[in-house]
Amino acid sequence: MRVGILGGGQLGRMLALAAAPLGVRVRFLDPDAACPAGEVGELQVGAYDDERTLAEFVRGVDVVTYEFENVPARAAEWLATRVPVYPPVGALAAAQDRLAEKACFASLGIQTAPHQKVDDEDELHAAIVAVGMPCILKTRRFGYDGKGQWVIRSDADAARAWAEASEGRAGGKYALILEGFVQFERELSMLGVRGNDGECRFYPPVQNTHEKGILSRSVAPAPGVSDEQRSAMEQATGRVLERLNYVGVLAVEYFDLGGGRFVANEMAPRVHNSGHWTIEGSECSQFENHMRAVAGMPLGSTECRGYSVMLNVIGGEPDVRGLLAMRGVHVHMYGKTARAGRKQGHVTVCGESAADVGTRASRASEKLKYC
Amino acid sequence: MRVGILGGGQLGRMLALAAAPLGVRVRFLDPDAACPAGEVGELQVGAYDDERTLAEFVRGVDVVTYEFENVPARAAEWLATRVPVYPPVGALAAAQDRLAEKACFASLGIQTAPHQKVDDEDELHAAIVAVGMPCILKTRRFGYDGKGQWVIRSDADAARAWAEASEGRAGGKYALILEGFVQFERELSMLGVRGNDGECRFYPPVQNTHEKGILSRSVAPAPGVSDEQRSAMEQATGRVLERLNYVGVLAVEYFDLGGGRFVANEMAPRVHNSGHWTIEGSECSQFENHMRAVAGMPLGSTECRGYSVMLNVIGGEPDVRGLLAMRGVHVHMYGKTARAGRKQGHVTVCGESAADVGTRASRASEKLKYC
Repeated sequence: MRVGILGGGQLGRMLALAAAPLGVRVRFLDPDAACPAGEVGELQVGAYDDERTLAEFVRGVDVVTYEFENVPARAAEWLATRVPVYPPVGALAAAQDRLAEKACFASLGIQTAPHQKVDDEDELHAAIVAVGMPCILKTRRFGYDGKGQWVIRSDADAARAWAEASEGRAGGKYALILEGFVQFERELSMLGVRGNDGECRFYPPVQNTHEKGILSRSVAPAPGVSDEQRSAMEQATGRVLERLNYVGVLAVEYFDLGGGRFVANEMAPRVHNSGHWTIEGSECSQFENHMRAVAGMPLGSTECRGYSVMLNVIGGEPDVRGLLAMRGVHVHMYGKTARAGRKQGHVTVCGESAADVGTRASRASEKLKYC
Repeated sequence: MRVGILGGGQLGRMLALAAAPLGVRVRFLDPDAACPAGEVGELQVGAYDDERTLAEFVRGVDVVTYEFENVPARAAEWLATRVPVYPPVGALAAAQDRLAEKACFASLGIQTAPHQKVDDEDELHAAIVAVGMPCILKTRRFGYDGKGQWVIRSDADAARAWAEASEGRAGGKYALILEGFVQFERELSMLGVRGNDGECRFYPPVQNTHEKGILSRSVAPAPGVSDEQRSAMEQATGRVLERLNYVGVLAVEYFDLGGGRFVANEMAPRVHNSGHWTIEGSECSQFENHMRAVAGMPLGSTECRGYSVMLNVIGGEPDVRGLLAMRGVHVHMYGKTARAGRKQGHVTVCGESAADVGTRASRASEKLKYC
């Protein structure tokens, strides 16, 4: 069994490390010869939109998956005529466009933030009236880590947001969406996995904290989630998996409104940063379960092994020696050169008590230097 | 940090999987382009005894280690003039020769089986008289998995053993050793790790069972080992680590004589099959600890996470799907083509109770097909 993986970033790297013990071979396609996954798996360097490159990539490959959601739709479609592509191309389409994504949630009875599509300046003003300020203008496609987002609290903000958002336009239409602010207590995420026999399993809800728009910390399982809420989140995530005829790991981010209520924020049709804790903190990691699913193998247990806190290493070089010397701290570096705002690695703090893990996570976070 | 690894078998493969999260790059040297480690790390194909190959291998490498103990001494010595070689060349020398190995144990006050060196047929007969029958004739070098061993219970056995043992001789002397039988209850092993700052840590004693001379099962921690015996085994293993000025993981096999007494059988200056359970069954695996040690990083915790049984997959293709569907069963395939007597992979069964793990290990072993 050989799995082709589009994208050779850190997610690909961790997929490769999980694939090897299963006896599953991997081949990456990435434009960057120095990408993190190239160290641990076969790497083909090339462009995603070149048909000759794709033809070479898919030769001898049994199934194709991807580690980022901005895979060009045409590449995925072309590949899908040759071999199975998991998660299916329809999941990519739903996740690549914030409007389609919200329509998917809504059609499944899953609440989202109020929103309006914005294709021109007039629509922006109409949307602000409909949604109300404060609100947030976002590109419908290719946003990540807080990029392509403009908060609007005033008419001046609206004018600036439009100026900046329209700057990137290639002449004609530039698809945007205006989202209303949701008064939420915290962000939760849930990772689900669906096998190609249709079986679904769910990791517990995780509580996420961001810094400057980038995930900085995930606490697993999220404290204070009632069984009812967890079950409702599993049902919502499961409905998305079913609708998309999904195979692999799917991440859904939720805003927790308190009182057991939540709305869906967005989905990622891939393994997700908020699931990195599963490497040590669960029976079978998100990476192994994704590879099992796409390779047609039975799913592994998503049960927790104790409590975990995952901390991202962003920008600078952390004190790796200091971290390794700590009890129950697991270091994962991605082999990237340091750059401001770049995810260099992550650290997972594990233990048998949530309080103890929290204390040690605070100490560990002092050893992470952020640029 | 780049670590050069001599040998690209399954041990190298698992070292590479443990090295990547530490941000440690690896380069393997192996004569076989299809070796298991080549899938997960940079591989240079070449002979261990070719100086030009070694020069290329060591370029850009900060430290060299190895995953098999039959590294040609001259290659290790040549490399050690360029970069640190860990474990040190002296450890290789001690482990490569059963006579030197036993002398090392004895000089540290660690009991071994009675033994005599055998260089010719006369010495064999004298040794049989000294040691007594039954006894076992072994090659002093290059034996593994029961190869190069002849049990002697009679004069006829002795004649046959000598005929077979001397067949392999290249003209002159062929170094052999005769070992007396030890009445032991079971085989235990202990893995120790020593950092390059001299810190030592020990995994708990493990109970090993062999089939046809090949390790088939390891139970961790070994049941029924008293605190006194465990401590005595740690002291013995620690004395070897100190004597050899060791850096990395060392495995020592012991015969458990009952009543807390034990003798040392042999050592392996590398990660060891009886430590594979540490991937899921301990805080920090033997592979990660070996890489930490040779890379000059602080050691990780050798504490257990519950109970583990490791089963080797030997010869045939196991029922991977059936194994993956079992709770708490972790599959590790090595990417080798099946061949009789060949280690294809291993399976680790984990859980919170020794009895439960034992039951599930029995069920798992039914899904392993041995040729």
